[in-house]
Amino acid sequence: MSQQLPSTIPTSLFETTADAIADTARELAASGWTPATSSNFSARIDADHAAITISGRDKGKLGRDDIMLIDMQGKAVGTDAKPSAETALHTQIYRRWPEMHAVLHTHSRTQSVASRLYASDGVIRLQGWELQKAITGYSTHESLLEIPVFPNTQHMPELVDRVDAWLNADKPLHAYLIDGHGIYTWGRDMRETHRHLEALEFLLGCELDLKRLRAS
Amino acid sequence: MSQQLPSTIPTSLFETTADAIADTARELAASGWTPATSSNFSARIDADHAAITISGRDKGKLGRDDIMLIDMQGKAVGTDAKPSAETALHTQIYRRWPEMHAVLHTHSRTQSVASRLYASDGVIRLQGWELQKAITGYSTHESLLEIPVFPNTQHMPELVDRVDAWLNADKPLHAYLIDGHGIYTWGRDMRETHRHLEALEFLLGCELDLKRLRAS
Amino acid sequence: MSQQLPSTIPTSLFETTADAIADTARELAASGWTPATSSNFSARIDADHAAITISGRDKGKLGRDDIMLIDMQGKAVGTDAKPSAETALHTQIYRRWPEMHAVLHTHSRTQSVASRLYASDGVIRLQGWELQKAITGYSTHESLLEIPVFPNTQHMPELVDRVDAWLNADKPLHAYLIDGHGIYTWGRDMRETHRHLEALEFLLGCELDLKRLRAS
Amino acid sequence: MSQQLPSTIPTSLFETTADAIADTARELAASGWTPATSSNFSARIDADHAAITISGRDKGKLGRDDIMLIDMQGKAVGTDAKPSAETALHTQIYRRWPEMHAVLHTHSRTQSVASRLYASDGVIRLQGWELQKAITGYSTHESLLEIPVFPNTQHMPELVDRVDAWLNADKPLHAYLIDGHGIYTWGRDMRETHRHLEALEFLLGCELDLKRLRAS
Repeated sequence: MSQQLPSTIPTSLFETTADAIADTARELAASGWTPATSSNFSARIDADHAAITISGRDKGKLGRDDIMLIDMQGKAVGTDAKPSAETALHTQIYRRWPEMHAVLHTHSRTQSVASRLYASDGVIRLQGWELQKAITGYSTHESLLEIPVFPNTQHMPELVDRVDAWLNADKPLHAYLIDGHGIYTWGRDMRETHRHLEALEFLLGCELDLKRLRAS
Repeated sequence: MSQQLPSTIPTSLFETTADAIADTARELAASGWTPATSSNFSARIDADHAAITISGRDKGKLGRDDIMLIDMQGKAVGTDAKPSAETALHTQIYRRWPEMHAVLHTHSRTQSVASRLYASDGVIRLQGWELQKAITGYSTHESLLEIPVFPNTQHMPELVDRVDAWLNADKPLHAYLIDGHGIYTWGRDMRETHRHLEALEFLLGCELDLKRLRAS
Repeated sequence: MSQQLPSTIPTSLFETTADAIADTARELAASGWTPATSSNFSARIDADHAAITISGRDKGKLGRDDIMLIDMQGKAVGTDAKPSAETALHTQIYRRWPEMHAVLHTHSRTQSVASRLYASDGVIRLQGWELQKAITGYSTHESLLEIPVFPNTQHMPELVDRVDAWLNADKPLHAYLIDGHGIYTWGRDMRETHRHLEALEFLLGCELDLKRLRAS
Repeated sequence: MSQQLPSTIPTSLFETTADAIADTARELAASGWTPATSSNFSARIDADHAAITISGRDKGKLGRDDIMLIDMQGKAVGTDAKPSAETALHTQIYRRWPEMHAVLHTHSRTQSVASRLYASDGVIRLQGWELQKAITGYSTHESLLEIPVFPNTQHMPELVDRVDAWLNADKPLHAYLIDGHGIYTWGRDMRETHRHLEALEFLLGCELDLKRLRAS
């Protein structure tokens, strides 16, 4: 491993975190949510650092060596490896919420299609599904769960600004979609984040099915 | 295992029952019917007790230690573990029918979508499918299999009352759906119950496909 | 194994045949085409005997002991086991065509839904698909492949008569569907029959998808 | 192995190449993209030779012995094995582009259905999907990715001519569909080609889903 760690980060902490990312990545890849080397995953190491997947690796075969250290500005720390172009979207979460410890970005067919379909609305509204309760803070199917859909861009600062604008309007945010692209979600640990992702994929799939069937 | 057993329940009986629940849970999770720690499963131990999944565990990794003992009022017996909020729906089955020995509640996309689509009708009517014969008591595809769809609520006694009301109207009941939520089904042993669940998932999926295609 | 064999049938022949059936059954079950103990499979032993799956077994866990010997009238030979109620549909194939050595009946969602959708036409007509060439005797996508859809019945002789009537009208027959039920297909050996089944499942799925999309 | 190699081709080169083809084939078969022995795969050996799958083999069980050597006119070299009828479509790629080292042809349900649906247009136009960036040469979702759909024929020279005509009209080409049949794609190595195939399958699936949903 060519990753050099700052003296404040124990090797075992980095390795445990990298393994948790790699394990989750392989599970998500097996579900088919990371086609063609897309998707990226990260976890917080401390207040100033996170571990994140190196750009372009096959997510189905990810190991510890495919994970690198970054600072909270998204710059590589102690390695020549290149983090994903979308790293800024991960560090934005960690900077804004000290209690958030994991960010997962995937790219399933359901996520991609839902994002295109609701792009003009700018939001998907979920209501009436028991599984909304899998999102931390939701205790009933009667609540309204809003997932914004932001326009896609190859220029990351634009996306960072859109996320900030949504939050500055005092709207709650647990996940967002990018048009034609995929989903970002986060949580206080990898397990909660994984549960959020699984629930959101399920809910988006249900919503699309229901839309098709109600038109029948 | 922190589970203490009453002297009337042999350890081997509890362990065999717990293993049967855990094995079935892992199979159902592998089919994708238990997203995001949802779903719960139980089996009768004796006239006064059942074993049931502890709340919030990942159903894909379930083992013997994720199963707890309850009495027929749904209270934990010999353990501090917390049973699922929906335990009352399991014990209702065991109290009403002494011959029923297993209850499975899952949460597949097909089950959730079907429940939303037929919620206003309050029932799904299945007819003309050979696989109806997989439900005990059905010997021909010409029979009518009715699955009620009850409104969802976070208040379990309401659901218990709705199930009772359906049965008090002398309607046969092999399974029911809860709107936006999932399915409950049961049987005389785990194998029969598993077969019921597999058949109902299949039949609901066929019914939705046919509805879409007939509208084409 | 409680199966007694007539002296004319070597043990090794029966065992090899039973293993081929069980191997194929487990593969088809893994594809989800045999829900809830449905489906049955057979292979010819000699001019007067075939091996067939015992009724009601879980097709995902099938072994040599789940296979029994029958004669060409569908009666059990050398065993108390009960063959499937649909055995008559297997022996009909073996009696009519001495060159046919395997019959597979499955019950996938695609097969069940297609059979309901085309039941009133009585036939599904496939044309323009390259994979039609996987059916023995077809050498171009331009040929027309007709799969009849017979009404379902719990009375097997009715189905036997319908198959005979189709053939007596000089129509070619490689497979047929039963309304709300599933498919029967056959071939000169297990490998060819398996290829036929895989191709037909694929073609029916394509046809349903295309129907939905053309209506969009 | 009955494959004899010309003295200019080291055994280890052929074996490594054959293994890469077989490994990829088994992965694609596991995804269900090679039903009923369909599909074929090749990789360049040198300027004058390629390794290609032998006709009619089960792609899920492919090994080194199922791969043969051909020259760039598609003739078998050092073996009696029969290459696929569609070999001419592979060698056309290698002759035209010296930098291309792998060609994959699969036959998924999505590919087959998309080809039928867009056959009359003669082309599928993809735009607005982030995953277009998985195709070498594409750096933004805003680009237009055109996949031509050629009519199917059992006469390969016709297909070769259609591909040449498209290219002679100065249109870029990364992949093409054949009506009712499947997809061809290629790349500078097996990994890039596999990524192209995975991305194209995903994009075609998204496009079909979106078409269905927009009609709802």
